[in-house]
Amino acid sequence: MNYRMITYVMGQIFKVVGLTMALPMLVGFIYGEDHVLTSFGIPMLILLLLGIITTAKKPKNNSIFSMEGFVSVAASWIGVSMIGALPFVISGEIPDYPSALFETVSGFTTTGATILSDIESMSRASLFWRAFTHWLGGMGILMFVLAIMSSNDARTMHMMRAECAGPKVGRLVSKSSFSARILYGIYMSLTVAEVIFLLFGGMPLYDSIIHACSSAGTGGFSIYGDSIGHYNSLYIEMVIAVFILLFGVNFNLYYYIIIRKYALAFKNEEVHWYFGIIAAATAIITINISHLYDSVGDALRHAFFMTASTITSTGFATADTAQWPVFSQTLMLLLMFVGSCAGSTGGGMKVSRIMIIVKTGIKELKYIINPRAVATVKMDGKPVEKGVVRGALSYLVLFVILMCTSLLLISLDKYSIEESLSAVVTCMNNIGFGVGRFGPAGGFGELKAFSKIVLCFDMLLGRLEIYPVILLFAVRKKTI
Amino acid sequence: MNYRMITYVMGQIFKVVGLTMALPMLVGFIYGEDHVLTSFGIPMLILLLLGIITTAKKPKNNSIFSMEGFVSVAASWIGVSMIGALPFVISGEIPDYPSALFETVSGFTTTGATILSDIESMSRASLFWRAFTHWLGGMGILMFVLAIMSSNDARTMHMMRAECAGPKVGRLVSKSSFSARILYGIYMSLTVAEVIFLLFGGMPLYDSIIHACSSAGTGGFSIYGDSIGHYNSLYIEMVIAVFILLFGVNFNLYYYIIIRKYALAFKNEEVHWYFGIIAAATAIITINISHLYDSVGDALRHAFFMTASTITSTGFATADTAQWPVFSQTLMLLLMFVGSCAGSTGGGMKVSRIMIIVKTGIKELKYIINPRAVATVKMDGKPVEKGVVRGALSYLVLFVILMCTSLLLISLDKYSIEESLSAVVTCMNNIGFGVGRFGPAGGFGELKAFSKIVLCFDMLLGRLEIYPVILLFAVRKKTI
Repeated sequence: MNYRMITYVMGQIFKVVGLTMALPMLVGFIYGEDHVLTSFGIPMLILLLLGIITTAKKPKNNSIFSMEGFVSVAASWIGVSMIGALPFVISGEIPDYPSALFETVSGFTTTGATILSDIESMSRASLFWRAFTHWLGGMGILMFVLAIMSSNDARTMHMMRAECAGPKVGRLVSKSSFSARILYGIYMSLTVAEVIFLLFGGMPLYDSIIHACSSAGTGGFSIYGDSIGHYNSLYIEMVIAVFILLFGVNFNLYYYIIIRKYALAFKNEEVHWYFGIIAAATAIITINISHLYDSVGDALRHAFFMTASTITSTGFATADTAQWPVFSQTLMLLLMFVGSCAGSTGGGMKVSRIMIIVKTGIKELKYIINPRAVATVKMDGKPVEKGVVRGALSYLVLFVILMCTSLLLISLDKYSIEESLSAVVTCMNNIGFGVGRFGPAGGFGELKAFSKIVLCFDMLLGRLEIYPVILLFAVRKKTI
Repeated sequence: MNYRMITYVMGQIFKVVGLTMALPMLVGFIYGEDHVLTSFGIPMLILLLLGIITTAKKPKNNSIFSMEGFVSVAASWIGVSMIGALPFVISGEIPDYPSALFETVSGFTTTGATILSDIESMSRASLFWRAFTHWLGGMGILMFVLAIMSSNDARTMHMMRAECAGPKVGRLVSKSSFSARILYGIYMSLTVAEVIFLLFGGMPLYDSIIHACSSAGTGGFSIYGDSIGHYNSLYIEMVIAVFILLFGVNFNLYYYIIIRKYALAFKNEEVHWYFGIIAAATAIITINISHLYDSVGDALRHAFFMTASTITSTGFATADTAQWPVFSQTLMLLLMFVGSCAGSTGGGMKVSRIMIIVKTGIKELKYIINPRAVATVKMDGKPVEKGVVRGALSYLVLFVILMCTSLLLISLDKYSIEESLSAVVTCMNNIGFGVGRFGPAGGFGELKAFSKIVLCFDMLLGRLEIYPVILLFAVRKKTI
């Protein structure tokens, strides 16, 4: 274990995140919010100092393997969240540190669950920082560092793997820093495009930037208590729904489109399932909720937006789903586990993992019917490697074990089993709202500090896909 | 697919189950309940006639493979349940057929969930039949047929596999009918022993037989609304708790003890985990509920009984767990999934499957830490065959998929997500009570007919461990 290299990588990340704190400071100056000088200045200084100290000397041994990659990413995410929570505490807007930490982890992991009950009272700078953590965390904090720094080291691939979502990870091009730059280029372009579309709908510039950042990371932080429902505009809802769906697609596809390999882009089986599930869920929910709305069109509008918001793990809301029939609520709960495509900014278990899991189930049934028939799990027409199948099944196993453990810990708080389960599910899948009490209206602020910390871990486990976080804590034992 | 042989096997089962209906008739005559002549006489005649017709001529081709074994067992269980529900309907005690079917499936699958709100008003004959279905279903209906009929056919093994619980199935001895006789011998002896112990505690003979049958199958049907709590006797509670725990142990162990292979019996890792989990859960729940009872001893008494009742999937109750802290309720919900040992009469996913699943999770973590280390899943010190590991993972996958589907269907009824989930979990794991509304106090009678049918399938899926039931319905497509 190369500890020196781990702190070096962490230092690089701290420096870059420290510099990005200039953005909320700028926002604060524009709106005349003077507290930013201390509330963002102090954490910025801490990050920069830590970064400069740890990166002053390049480590002699710069070898970095799977383990080092995973551990440094997990440690960086935790470190950045812990320091990134300070502005809320210093400004006095969220004086309670566990709550501020919950809000920041919820931001970076693009969960979007909030402890705030009065969002409108927050300063513009703080609201911008919340949304910006979504934007940074969506594509990956380390990826951002790789994209802006030139690195010739092929081994950074090991670190990308720790942040990228899905059962398999492929580089777009041989050099990982160049891959990161392509992905961030696409990410940035889509974000800017969304800002422009929102401006066309009459949304103010500040609001547009916030909601575009929040959409891009499929996070879900808004600046109003009633989220996107606040604007009550069909145009804005559709722009946001379409963009979050686009951010939930594997980014490799956009790269294929750019380099004109259209066949590779449009024959992707995962994307077919993704849009198939969205279409089916929207149709079923529309039928199930139509009696609650004036017209079928109205029901369709809400069903589509909420389905998109749930499956992409964004967590924006236009309707209070607690009022919907239990059937629709249950369907939404299941959609939370599905999540979006691998290699996107969305959360959940990822459509491709669900595909592998479902196909494995079917294969097993075929095997029972005829043990001599050789059944294989196929994706995009090709057999899936055994390691990938095993990985998806193991992911399910670990996910279930961790979910049960978290549920047990949260049940020590004062909530019912349904409420506790909904909190755990929404955090582990990085959605942002659950069902019932933790529905779109929020309610995480009432949790005990212990529960908040548990849910912080759940959000990190979900965003970093379990392994990095566990390895960070398992590692000491293994290396002695 | 040898359809002729399938109907032949079904016929044998129908004949035997038809004959066993003489027992509740006898009980009825003893207690002067004249309705038994028609209420049990008619279904008995139907079973015997169907049995005699289908077994009149031995099929020329008596080959029977995995498929035929699985399909005939699943079809027999459904057929026997459908006809076994008639006494309740004819006697007018449960006039609604879906409810009577639910009660009978709940009996044969040893679930013990009841639609009755006033158990005490049932006739003695019907209450005996309910408990007797537990006894028959516990060890297996087909196993019972094999045990009382001499069969030289080595292929009956394929059918035993469909009824036996757990990830692996081994014969005790080379001849399967002899294996069945040994197992039923042990089963019968333990049941008789429990009757004697209960009589010593002052329980009337009728009550003792009912509760011994119900314990043996780890079913849970009682003859009082307040279940075992009715007797308010520490001695009776402890006798029942110890016996259900014994019925939850792999029966092969008793065989090893009989043939004096003590090492094989006492070094069984699954049994160590089983008792370890029980001890840990009892201790944790005792601490968590101690403030609700007069003394720690009282809390321990209820914690131990309810833990034993839950993990063995029996469903007897001495306490209303809905009053317990949510933490204890959540723990109980998780214990329901664990279940008892493979090769026992208990339900759930089985301790050995959970062991394989947990060990696979740990192995995957080791693999991530060091991909070159060859980690294997071991049980009883020996590596577990890859097929068995794959089987356990596939079982989890199918279990999760079917649970989600059932949850979605039950959510069409009028219950909350928590209530729907609790009904599905308790039925799929063959427990008998859930949490909240479907807690020990019952409440299944209020479900819509559609929900009852869905839960009947869940109970059968749980008892027959998924594959036979699915194959019964998947088969037609595959053989054309």
